[in-house]
Amino acid sequence: MPRTFRVIFQPFGRQVAVAEGRTVLEAAQQAGIEMTSPCGGHGTCGGCRVEITRGTPPPTDAGAERLTAEELGRNVRLACQTRVTQDMTIVIPRESLLFDQQILETGIAVNVELDPNVRRVPLKMPEPSVDDQRSDADRLTDALAEQGVEATVDLALARELPDRLRRADFSGTAVVLADRVVQFDRGDSSAANYGVAVDLGTTTIVAALMNLATGQEVAVASCGNPQAAHGDDVISRIMYAQESATRLRELQQLAVGAFNKLIDELCEKADLKRTSIYELVLVGNTTMTHLILRLDPTYIARAPFIAALRRGAVAAPRDLGIAINPRGSVYVGPNIAGFVGADTVAVILAAGMHKSDKMRLAIDIGTNGELVLGHRQRLLAASTAAGPAFEGARIKYGMRAAAGAIDRVDVLDGRLRVHAIGDAPAIGLCGTGLIEAVSAFLELGVIDETGRMIEDADLAKLPKSIAARLVGAENDRAFVLADAKETHNGHPVLLTQKDVREVQLAKAAMYAGAKVLMAEMGIKVADLDEVLLAGAFGNFIRPDRARSVGLLPETPLDRIRFIGNAAGTGARMMLLDRRLRDTAEEISLGVEHVELSGRADFQDFFAEAMLFTPPS
Amino acid sequence: MPRTFRVIFQPFGRQVAVAEGRTVLEAAQQAGIEMTSPCGGHGTCGGCRVEITRGTPPPTDAGAERLTAEELGRNVRLACQTRVTQDMTIVIPRESLLFDQQILETGIAVNVELDPNVRRVPLKMPEPSVDDQRSDADRLTDALAEQGVEATVDLALARELPDRLRRADFSGTAVVLADRVVQFDRGDSSAANYGVAVDLGTTTIVAALMNLATGQEVAVASCGNPQAAHGDDVISRIMYAQESATRLRELQQLAVGAFNKLIDELCEKADLKRTSIYELVLVGNTTMTHLILRLDPTYIARAPFIAALRRGAVAAPRDLGIAINPRGSVYVGPNIAGFVGADTVAVILAAGMHKSDKMRLAIDIGTNGELVLGHRQRLLAASTAAGPAFEGARIKYGMRAAAGAIDRVDVLDGRLRVHAIGDAPAIGLCGTGLIEAVSAFLELGVIDETGRMIEDADLAKLPKSIAARLVGAENDRAFVLADAKETHNGHPVLLTQKDVREVQLAKAAMYAGAKVLMAEMGIKVADLDEVLLAGAFGNFIRPDRARSVGLLPETPLDRIRFIGNAAGTGARMMLLDRRLRDTAEEISLGVEHVELSGRADFQDFFAEAMLFTPPS
Repeated sequence: MPRTFRVIFQPFGRQVAVAEGRTVLEAAQQAGIEMTSPCGGHGTCGGCRVEITRGTPPPTDAGAERLTAEELGRNVRLACQTRVTQDMTIVIPRESLLFDQQILETGIAVNVELDPNVRRVPLKMPEPSVDDQRSDADRLTDALAEQGVEATVDLALARELPDRLRRADFSGTAVVLADRVVQFDRGDSSAANYGVAVDLGTTTIVAALMNLATGQEVAVASCGNPQAAHGDDVISRIMYAQESATRLRELQQLAVGAFNKLIDELCEKADLKRTSIYELVLVGNTTMTHLILRLDPTYIARAPFIAALRRGAVAAPRDLGIAINPRGSVYVGPNIAGFVGADTVAVILAAGMHKSDKMRLAIDIGTNGELVLGHRQRLLAASTAAGPAFEGARIKYGMRAAAGAIDRVDVLDGRLRVHAIGDAPAIGLCGTGLIEAVSAFLELGVIDETGRMIEDADLAKLPKSIAARLVGAENDRAFVLADAKETHNGHPVLLTQKDVREVQLAKAAMYAGAKVLMAEMGIKVADLDEVLLAGAFGNFIRPDRARSVGLLPETPLDRIRFIGNAAGTGARMMLLDRRLRDTAEEISLGVEHVELSGRADFQDFFAEAMLFTPPS
Repeated sequence: MPRTFRVIFQPFGRQVAVAEGRTVLEAAQQAGIEMTSPCGGHGTCGGCRVEITRGTPPPTDAGAERLTAEELGRNVRLACQTRVTQDMTIVIPRESLLFDQQILETGIAVNVELDPNVRRVPLKMPEPSVDDQRSDADRLTDALAEQGVEATVDLALARELPDRLRRADFSGTAVVLADRVVQFDRGDSSAANYGVAVDLGTTTIVAALMNLATGQEVAVASCGNPQAAHGDDVISRIMYAQESATRLRELQQLAVGAFNKLIDELCEKADLKRTSIYELVLVGNTTMTHLILRLDPTYIARAPFIAALRRGAVAAPRDLGIAINPRGSVYVGPNIAGFVGADTVAVILAAGMHKSDKMRLAIDIGTNGELVLGHRQRLLAASTAAGPAFEGARIKYGMRAAAGAIDRVDVLDGRLRVHAIGDAPAIGLCGTGLIEAVSAFLELGVIDETGRMIEDADLAKLPKSIAARLVGAENDRAFVLADAKETHNGHPVLLTQKDVREVQLAKAAMYAGAKVLMAEMGIKVADLDEVLLAGAFGNFIRPDRARSVGLLPETPLDRIRFIGNAAGTGARMMLLDRRLRDTAEEISLGVEHVELSGRADFQDFFAEAMLFTPPS
């Protein structure tokens, strides 16, 4: 048996026993903490920096090479190079976490009244006698009614109830789901009331474990959507699923498999059993909600783009294969239209657009782009296929917003300053970096208003250090954002003329969509009280850059507000307060969907928006 | 290949193709008609008389021997002896049917408003377009709402809906169960709306196929409860079930197996598929409803006699194994107490006791005896274990009310006239015959007020033909109701001193129960506006005989009313009008259960009622 040491990870307070010789990176995995490791644990990228505050070992060669003297002095080490040889306390900085940074897990803080669909009610009942011959189920529901909870006993529980009540001496905790009593356990377990809120994105899945007794978030976990193996965007998934019921089930099972791993991870973090969780609330775009419910998505993908189901749906965990308590329930939020889903309803709910008098435009740029415009009197929604470019698809060096992705491009004194996520050497370019780069090119004159890269004849107008970065012939031109020396794998990161065109198409679609909605609403840009940016992409982008490339309307910067993973926030809200599901239903019915495809005005706005507005 | 002939059975209008040489009895079975056949098809009992109106063959030897010249002239033949050698039309008299006579299938006629839980709504929807992008489910429910039906689409149907709607060109029939749309079929199938009402008795099961579009009864079928293999009464069944979950499931499956055969029989009679049936409504005593729902009945059988569930319950057909449409539903009516079940609630509902101002006593004598007393202001209910004797249990020659059971005993000019069901030679004695015999004995002086059979010294006081029928020693005395010559198997049918004691115990229990309820209510026998007799036993008994032995209170004969299989009627009512399920729930909660066991006044009344009141 190898010796084991106690390793505590902060700021999580998670403690694990680790076998001697394991790396800190492995120990973190063992603790359920996903760290970045862009170079695959070879000590070459420096992406897995941690601070070892107790039991600090001397730096390894690779560590000494990658870390500054200042960092070494602060006991910073590379997790992949440092082995556990004693008890340790380790602080993981945010930028070394795989998902906490790049996938936006937390949304805006919203006050929610606690009225969860799952209630745990401690009860003490009088024992039966000849003078009190009530049935076991009546005895239970009468005691609940005394606590103000009206419910009937589920048949599955009724079957066990005589035994359960008597073993518990008629004293214990009833688990009530909506208006059905689904379980009765001896003892008071009323504090142990948990639920999971899931934001099922085309690209990423975020799950939050919520304490339904306190409203607090207990833990968050996230991962990529494994359905991506069958296509990056929703259309590819639908094309795959419509082939057969088996394929539809396969896509569903892929997502559910990911859910179940996330649920395990959450349970481990919180030291819970999966069966303690009685409810899972899920939002996602219409295709995602269809796939998870095994609804036929075929007609979403062809005109006139019809969903099978708009309403919110309740399913049995077993029907879907989701590993929470089998007597629990899965609630999937309502959609608006074929390409405007429950995630958009959740954004509206979280941002309170349905009850605000302010005229607001909400933009959620994920793999698809959704737009909502309006206020409590009237809400319009539309979708564009803007997203893929911003998620790294169709971009030569495009990648998701993970460690090593260029996310900042600044021009300082005529020189380019490029930053990658996790302070790691660049590997590629994420959506934010794409906007940043195009914005910088416009500023520098590398591209003109039409998006065309500078001609050889005009190269002399650029600063020398910038001009030197332009490579290739005029029609196959590219800009070197990071050269071979600056990347961890020795391959340069380029942005091509074609990539700029993709950005133009994507931003023009978003912008034209917003213009159509404003025209429908009969307002001008100046009438917008606020522009809300939702989603991970929206949260990391710098608004002046987004505005300068024409992705956002020309609204004053102080009217642009980030609302984080608002879809996830909306899902949490529906988990904590069941009445908000009715609100969501009203939103999903009340929002007017504006179909952009085939609209002449959309085409006009789109052509117009292909031009880059010069930076203001 | 043998030749086949067309045989038509009347009054059913059922037509079957029968192979040459088959007996008419076999042909009837083939047509799904159960005939009596007490001697097992040997032509010795004459219980299977039929009238052959077309293609009448000459009588067989056995037939000629058993049938009168008048019968032979009317083309009456024995079904078991007559072979099919040509096309025939056959009329089966009621007394030759196995169940139509002895198990009371039909109840009192009651006016019910048609508002079934299952609705079939024909719909035509506009096809989707860019201007009408409603989801498939919304399109369906909006069209339903236009017909005044508010419902949401079940997830299982939503999964198939895109395909089903398009195959049907958006025109077809929606099947709505409560407020859920569970199926959509092309074409108009609104007239084909069927449901089944089941009265699950300890001894017998009666199932009625109802047309929910018209309220008409389409067919009825019945059989014995196969659970009887594990005990005649509910206590034995509970003792068996409580041993293990496997045994509980076994009892449940026995009953369900019988249901499924009855459903097949009903479907064959009506030429339906089982999947056309979306709902089954069931009533039964509390033990029966527990066993069918697989609820643990253990605590019903021990003081203080607690049921697991009082409320009505809805279960999925698959959960119970019932072979109707798997998307349909099974509704099991609510109980009142451990020994007063959903069948009693159904009796109250059918008799309208909950809304009548009349003071009425309802008596349902099955394997258990249930009593209900009161009116709309107040209803009291109690149960006694009176039944088994009246169902033939614990009686030496006791049998169920089937062909060959003595059901009438008359004294004419000092001579005994004994009649058996189906005009067949006697085999034994059913509950009705038991009361009749005891009543006749009292009239003749064969037994005295204490139930004691006449002493040898007093034999001379009896008519000679009666005295000759007394056999055995004084303490082991018996009365020969039918001697060896009069029975079909050569064994005499006797009624023993011990049998008389059983009748005394049973009738005393019923009577004492009624007395306790009247005392609770603060009324006297004279205050009873009506005495209602429910159940098969109640329906076949002659009220003056029942009153003469003290089974019924000394109420005027014109206040005694038969209400037939009122439990079955109540089940049909709840099937046809779903709102009556709420009424049933109110009845089950509102009725005051009076626990007779351990009550001193019950013991007193019981002792008093052991005496036979002399005939009035």
